[in-house]
Amino acid sequence: MSEHRKLRIEELGRMSIAENKVAEHEHLTVVLDNVRSLNNIGSVFRTSDAMDVERVVLCGISSTPPSPEMHKTALGAEDSVPWKYYEDTLDAIRDLKAEGYTVISIEQTENSTALQDYPFSKNGKYAIIMGNEVHGVQQSVVDASDLCIELPQFGSKHSMNVSVTTGMVLWEATTKIKGLRP
Amino acid sequence: MSEHRKLRIEELGRMSIAENKVAEHEHLTVVLDNVRSLNNIGSVFRTSDAMDVERVVLCGISSTPPSPEMHKTALGAEDSVPWKYYEDTLDAIRDLKAEGYTVISIEQTENSTALQDYPFSKNGKYAIIMGNEVHGVQQSVVDASDLCIELPQFGSKHSMNVSVTTGMVLWEATTKIKGLRP
Repeated sequence: MSEHRKLRIEELGRMSIAENKVAEHEHLTVVLDNVRSLNNIGSVFRTSDAMDVERVVLCGISSTPPSPEMHKTALGAEDSVPWKYYEDTLDAIRDLKAEGYTVISIEQTENSTALQDYPFSKNGKYAIIMGNEVHGVQQSVVDASDLCIELPQFGSKHSMNVSVTTGMVLWEATTKIKGLRP
Repeated sequence: MSEHRKLRIEELGRMSIAENKVAEHEHLTVVLDNVRSLNNIGSVFRTSDAMDVERVVLCGISSTPPSPEMHKTALGAEDSVPWKYYEDTLDAIRDLKAEGYTVISIEQTENSTALQDYPFSKNGKYAIIMGNEVHGVQQSVVDASDLCIELPQFGSKHSMNVSVTTGMVLWEATTKIKGLRP
């Protein structure tokens, strides 16, 4: 037997969709501020399932499930991760702040904090706002946020794909919230 | 003026594609082992540009630039990040090992290391192998690798999208290689 034998699906020990729906999740909410692409929204659902996100909040032009196109990238995660819709992202922020969430826009701004430096902690409640593919997070939504986090970038392009960036942010947040980092 | 004013593109201080092509990059190579989707390959190029990857190695059925479909997600990064093609991924691994690279398959295996625990360092040379959308990294390629790294997952799905996972791995590797973490 190989030293690096690939695990079979039944060896991964994942929950069923039904079990996942009633399980406790981290106080980590993803807010999509006018994300247009169904491919991106579906991908955010799939990553949110894996990273123990409690819900996805869809705002403005962001489509909601069910959607055959979204299903192609969500692969069922649109059924395992709860979601909510708001027409105006500012209303979502108001409700999240009332529930005690720290509202964080992912944007390159003056005074933004580098992702790797932000101390996500076990007892925190975090709402992560991801913006539109072209325009990013709206300035009014940035202004209503508690802080902005940016990801240092080292190449020639100005930004990264929104579903990939969501993955990087959730990886950083979830490993810190769960105390997996030294 | 807002405390969180969004930065304009010219304030981001990015290199031009021409500057990026001749710049020094980290010894960090991404190897795609039979990745089928042009959307995913293009997305990997875009993220590789941002995370200072030196080249993308495309193997087997993985398509190569130029491709209009790939361009939709690469947005020009297929021109800023060098690439190479191998018909057989094992030949790519042989050459990378001869160049002194540590070859790392991203797979859920017996004996795999959790991503957050792996000590990527400034002086290392790393080749990160990402597998096919359905089958993952081939077992023969896993066997030829120096180690396997997996990303802990907490939900009901068995895996994450390959371009999102590449983003998470590159974020972890690049922040450690550049000494950005405590």
